[in-house]
Amino acid sequence: MQDPLGGVFAAVMTPLREDLTVDTDHLAAHCRTLLNEGCHGVSLFGTTGEGPAFTAEERMTALEAVIGDGVAAQSILPGTGCVALPDTIRLTRHAIGLGCTNILLMPPFFFKEPTDEGVFAHYKSVIEGVNNANLRIYIYNFPAVTGVWIRPHVVERLIAKFPGTIAGVKDSSGDWDYVDALLAIPGLAVFSGWEALLPRLLAAGGAGNISGLANVIAPTLRHVYDTRPADPDHPVMQGITGLVAAVVENPVIPAIRALAANLRNDPSWRRIRPPLCALDSTTEIALLAAFEETMDGVRI
Amino acid sequence: MQDPLGGVFAAVMTPLREDLTVDTDHLAAHCRTLLNEGCHGVSLFGTTGEGPAFTAEERMTALEAVIGDGVAAQSILPGTGCVALPDTIRLTRHAIGLGCTNILLMPPFFFKEPTDEGVFAHYKSVIEGVNNANLRIYIYNFPAVTGVWIRPHVVERLIAKFPGTIAGVKDSSGDWDYVDALLAIPGLAVFSGWEALLPRLLAAGGAGNISGLANVIAPTLRHVYDTRPADPDHPVMQGITGLVAAVVENPVIPAIRALAANLRNDPSWRRIRPPLCALDSTTEIALLAAFEETMDGVRI
Repeated sequence: MQDPLGGVFAAVMTPLREDLTVDTDHLAAHCRTLLNEGCHGVSLFGTTGEGPAFTAEERMTALEAVIGDGVAAQSILPGTGCVALPDTIRLTRHAIGLGCTNILLMPPFFFKEPTDEGVFAHYKSVIEGVNNANLRIYIYNFPAVTGVWIRPHVVERLIAKFPGTIAGVKDSSGDWDYVDALLAIPGLAVFSGWEALLPRLLAAGGAGNISGLANVIAPTLRHVYDTRPADPDHPVMQGITGLVAAVVENPVIPAIRALAANLRNDPSWRRIRPPLCALDSTTEIALLAAFEETMDGVRI
Repeated sequence: MQDPLGGVFAAVMTPLREDLTVDTDHLAAHCRTLLNEGCHGVSLFGTTGEGPAFTAEERMTALEAVIGDGVAAQSILPGTGCVALPDTIRLTRHAIGLGCTNILLMPPFFFKEPTDEGVFAHYKSVIEGVNNANLRIYIYNFPAVTGVWIRPHVVERLIAKFPGTIAGVKDSSGDWDYVDALLAIPGLAVFSGWEALLPRLLAAGGAGNISGLANVIAPTLRHVYDTRPADPDHPVMQGITGLVAAVVENPVIPAIRALAANLRNDPSWRRIRPPLCALDSTTEIALLAAFEETMDGVRI
C-alpha cells in the first residue's frame, strides 16, 4: 500500500479556449509548470478547477491529455465527484484506469444538508461501485459550496468499513475544530484549502495544502512547506494572509484567474464559463495592487 | 407561437428499480396516472424528480421511454438544467427533438450566489447553444437548493433579448414579493411550487402549480385549480396547508416518497439514491397520521 499524500498540491485552474471548451494542451502545460515550481502534485477539477462546470466527457478527455503529455499519474489528484452517482463511479474508474489511484471526492451537492447516514451511504456506494483495491479516496469537505458537512464520525465509519481506501480529507471549511477532529483520526492525511493555515496544520500533524493560490504563488507555498515558519507574524505568512483576504473580497475563482492573467502574462486565464464572470478591469487592477502590496518582498 | 402553459403540473418523482436505476416503465405509468388524475401536465427531473441525481444519459433514456409509452410530448415539461453548460444544451436539444418544446430550466447550482450578469450569461449561452426557435423556457427559481436567485430584472432582460423564448418562471422560493414582481412582467407564465399559494396565485394572474404533492393529491389540486377558493380558510386549503407543514418537517422528497408508498400501496416508491435516505418507519407512520388528519374529508 502506498503512503498517503503530503505536500503542496495546486488546485489547478482549468484553461479555456475562446469557445470556452477546455484547452487541454494549456492544462497539461500548466500542470508541468506548477510541478516545476515546486508543487508536490496537482489536483484537477476541484472547486478552483470548476470541476462541476465540465461534463464527464470533458473531464475524462482532459485527464487523458494531461497524462498523455507526460504528467505522472501518481502526481495527479483528480476530482471525480459529480452530482449523479453513476457519473462519479464512471469518472473514478476512468481515472484509476489511467493510473490515478488518489482521488479527490466531493459529495453530491444538489440536496443540501443530507443526513450523516446519507453521506455515508453515498461514499459507500462510490467505493462499492468502483470496486478497485487500488482506490485511495481523499474526501473533500467544502460545505459553503456543496451544502454538505462530512463529519469526522462519518469519516471514521468509512475507514472502519473500508480500511485502506479512505486515505485523507481535504477541508476547505477552514474550521479549525473540524480540522482538529480529523487530525485525531489515526493514519488520515489531512489537507486544508486555506493557505494561511499551512504551518499550523503541518505542526499539528497535517499533510499539506490543496491550494487555489498555488496557481500563482506555488514557489512561495513550497517554501512555507519546507521551512514551516512557527511564527504566525512571519513576513511570508503575513503576506499570504493578506493575499487571501484580498482574494476572498472578490468572487474567488475569477480573482485567481485575474491574478494568473497578470502574473503569468496570459490573458486567456480570464476566460470563464457562466454563471461565473471575469472581474471587471477596475476590480482586477485593485486586486493586483493588493497582491503587489501584500506580497512585496516575500514572494519567491 | 403556442400559448404559455397553465394548470396543475406534477413535479414527478422518479421511480427506481432495486438497483437504484430508473424504472422507466414505472415512470411512464406514473405519468399516465397523474394525467388521468387531473394534472394538466407532468414535469420530469426537477427537484422532486431528483433530476441532478441522474446522469444525462439516464435522463434522456427516461424521457424517450415516457414518450414512447404514449405520453404526449406537449404535456411534458422536462427539466434539462445541469451543472455543466454542455450537458444542459445537450439535454434541451434532445428534449426538443422528441417534441418537448417547453423546458424547465434550473440554473447551474455549484457556485452559489453568482452575479446577475452571470445568471443572464448562463441562460443566454443555453438559448444560443440550443439555437431552436421552438424552445420555450420556464426558468426555475429555487434558491434554497440551487443557491441562485433569478431576479425579475434578469428575467426581463432575457425576454428583451430573446422575445418568445422565455415563456415563464417557476418559483419555489415561496417569496410573495418575488412572485408579485414576476406577475408584473407582461406575458410571463408564473408558476409556484407552493401548493397552498395556488388560489392566491391564480387570482393574481398566475399560471398554476408545478407541484411535488401532486404525486399524491393530484385530484385535490385539480379541484382547487378549477374552483379557485377565494377564502384561505376554505377547508380544502386548510388541509393542503396542514399537509405542506407536515411534509416540510421532514426531508421533503423522502416524505413525498413515503406518502406515495402508502397511498399508492407501492413500497418501491421508498427507493432513493444517496445522499437522500428513506424515512425511518416511525417517522413515516407519524407523517401518514398527519396526512390522514389534515386531509380528512377534503381529499378528492
